[in-house]
Amino acid sequence: MTKYNALYAQSGGVTAVINSTACGLIETARKHTDKIGKVFAARNGIIGALTEDLIDTTLESDADIAALRHTPAGAFGSCRHKLGSMEKHRAQYERLMEVFSAHNIRYFFYNGGGDSQDTAYKVSKLGETMGYPITCIGIPKTIDNDLPFTDNSPGFGSVAKYVAVSIREAGLDVASMCLTSTKVFIMEVMGRHAGWIAAASGLAAEREGDAPHIILFPEIAFDPEAFLKKVQESVKKFGHCAIVVSEGVRNQDGSFISESGLVDAFGHKQLGGVAPVIAKLIKNNLGYKYHWALADYLQRSARHIASKTDVEQAYALGKAAVELALAGKTAVMPIIVREPGETYRWSIGEAQLEKVANVEVSMPRHYITKDGFGITDACRKYLSPLIGGEDYPPYRNGLPCYVTLKNVAVAKKLEKSFEV
Amino acid sequence: MTKYNALYAQSGGVTAVINSTACGLIETARKHTDKIGKVFAARNGIIGALTEDLIDTTLESDADIAALRHTPAGAFGSCRHKLGSMEKHRAQYERLMEVFSAHNIRYFFYNGGGDSQDTAYKVSKLGETMGYPITCIGIPKTIDNDLPFTDNSPGFGSVAKYVAVSIREAGLDVASMCLTSTKVFIMEVMGRHAGWIAAASGLAAEREGDAPHIILFPEIAFDPEAFLKKVQESVKKFGHCAIVVSEGVRNQDGSFISESGLVDAFGHKQLGGVAPVIAKLIKNNLGYKYHWALADYLQRSARHIASKTDVEQAYALGKAAVELALAGKTAVMPIIVREPGETYRWSIGEAQLEKVANVEVSMPRHYITKDGFGITDACRKYLSPLIGGEDYPPYRNGLPCYVTLKNVAVAKKLEKSFEV
Repeated sequence: MTKYNALYAQSGGVTAVINSTACGLIETARKHTDKIGKVFAARNGIIGALTEDLIDTTLESDADIAALRHTPAGAFGSCRHKLGSMEKHRAQYERLMEVFSAHNIRYFFYNGGGDSQDTAYKVSKLGETMGYPITCIGIPKTIDNDLPFTDNSPGFGSVAKYVAVSIREAGLDVASMCLTSTKVFIMEVMGRHAGWIAAASGLAAEREGDAPHIILFPEIAFDPEAFLKKVQESVKKFGHCAIVVSEGVRNQDGSFISESGLVDAFGHKQLGGVAPVIAKLIKNNLGYKYHWALADYLQRSARHIASKTDVEQAYALGKAAVELALAGKTAVMPIIVREPGETYRWSIGEAQLEKVANVEVSMPRHYITKDGFGITDACRKYLSPLIGGEDYPPYRNGLPCYVTLKNVAVAKKLEKSFEV
Repeated sequence: MTKYNALYAQSGGVTAVINSTACGLIETARKHTDKIGKVFAARNGIIGALTEDLIDTTLESDADIAALRHTPAGAFGSCRHKLGSMEKHRAQYERLMEVFSAHNIRYFFYNGGGDSQDTAYKVSKLGETMGYPITCIGIPKTIDNDLPFTDNSPGFGSVAKYVAVSIREAGLDVASMCLTSTKVFIMEVMGRHAGWIAAASGLAAEREGDAPHIILFPEIAFDPEAFLKKVQESVKKFGHCAIVVSEGVRNQDGSFISESGLVDAFGHKQLGGVAPVIAKLIKNNLGYKYHWALADYLQRSARHIASKTDVEQAYALGKAAVELALAGKTAVMPIIVREPGETYRWSIGEAQLEKVANVEVSMPRHYITKDGFGITDACRKYLSPLIGGEDYPPYRNGLPCYVTLKNVAVAKKLEKSFEV
């Protein structure tokens, strides 16, 4: 059997566990050197593939590859670059084929969200459309949790845990001080299109009075009156109010609240930051002292508090990607399957890339309470297992030991360079 | 020997480990029931003492008191209320004496920062000034790390660890994506008057190129030109730039940068948030895509990533407070003493409250690099052991189990109420 090389690329916004997928993939490939030659990684995602900027992962020690499992962010670099249609951007696909061919690559593993699965699907068709035989496996990853078929998207569970832990802690802080100090605390979380991350914060509210007292979702048009009434009720009842707001919350007219409030000294709109707008609204109408936090990248890189379930699933999907390829599958994506039953158990299944590409799954309305400010039991039941378990990285000198790979470039073989 | 009761009160901004001090104090007192009667806690700090709103901690189980060690924020409530001078606010001191007397309290433990040590000192003088015999022990606590005599202030080490871990993680995220996405990341941290917390983030930069690349300290007047040059250098050299900025950074004229930039839709100045101002400055001058985070209360309540050293020291100080009281000491504060030698070892010492009160320790200039944007080896040597070790709380359902005490009120004995 002729041995072909593999190319692995990370795509889109990185997560706390995407490297755990890389770890699963590379460790599994290393067990099958009879069938898979070298695993290359594209530097900075698909851009590295197009510019023939490949990394030779065989030069990394087993220990360093193992350390990927507990290292956040993208060890090989990622990018935001979507390949266009085959018709309009044929040159890109031809270039990919040239790079693959020059480096004897016949396995392509693309680790990303919806857009990336679309790209993976297009690449998988290089065989029929351009006559280049390629095994192409998409691997899911996105904190947005909006991929279809899979029970959840790797990366989401760890953000979910981070926001739930953070609002529980900050909520206790505010509760301690509310008599004479801050009465309202607002934490802004990611989720431009869907409220999954905001919803996850609701897991912290296990008993009446627990933070968060209010969650603002992108799915629910913001109603200032109802919101202010709810804030006031919470302050009257519990002395304080802890609020989680999704960056994607919109006004009734569909515009983002984050774009409605602040201008800088030059009169330009200040982008980003719905929390200060909400804070100001409360201050102006109810007069409460407030504080707000914007977790931003801290939430998606927080490997120190990653969900063990998430880490394990991310690893398993990387492993499964290699196994699917070796089983002769192509144009598929391994997925997490939730087994029936009260106890959370999961296994690995697969989905056709054709059906995955460009489909976004939104949060069901029945996961949000009737008043629009909280999560339902159904939502809790779905989300709770995803934050289950802790998986701490090793520490040295009080800091987590994250690995930096050598990332040695593979010698280029093509004469032409390529402008992306 | 007649047994007297004790009163414990938490004061000022809460921390991830102030309850560890409460735990050390109550557990130690419970071992000396032959000498100390009940330990009461003042609800919401000194306000509870003034309004006779006391909590009977003897009604809490040993397990719940033990759980205080891993629970952030103030379990009995805290407040920002400074007792004025004995001359001008005599009524408050008389009231305290009445409450103490009514509840047979002759031990007063006040757990707070500089202001609180001043209060503790004043209370300690009730004996001579008002003829009420009281043993008064101050216990240090403040994330600001500005108390004199003690090697560090409990609460600081855990914030320090949080910011160092967070910037390491977010820095990796930005590094992964910088080719096509965010090039500059800014994390705003607490520290209105001193740069200790900002400095601690510098521990994450162990090798060249590590985040943070720039730290902005309150101690160094902000020089936009030098700063922008440094940002540009970092982006050119490493592809990105991770910045930590203290909320207390000031312009050359001494004004806070956080107050200089943003106005809301009504033209009012937007308080808080130096990070967006810095971000905008970079965007306007260098054009780099940016993201920013504001950790706010998340940083001081982050018990999930507390420093083990901090937790142990906080506990030891609570224990020592009781031991000092039993040894007949008064008007003192137990402190952390750093032992000489290369390996960090510490013991408990004591300082006179009279000398502690209202003295603020600022960060030495030689802890900041010459260019004003980083920390020196001397600073690193001082800070590093303070974030040493992890001390994870127990988890249930993926979330840390923090205790909520019963906090049963002690029946009031005084007829008069008291307005604070």
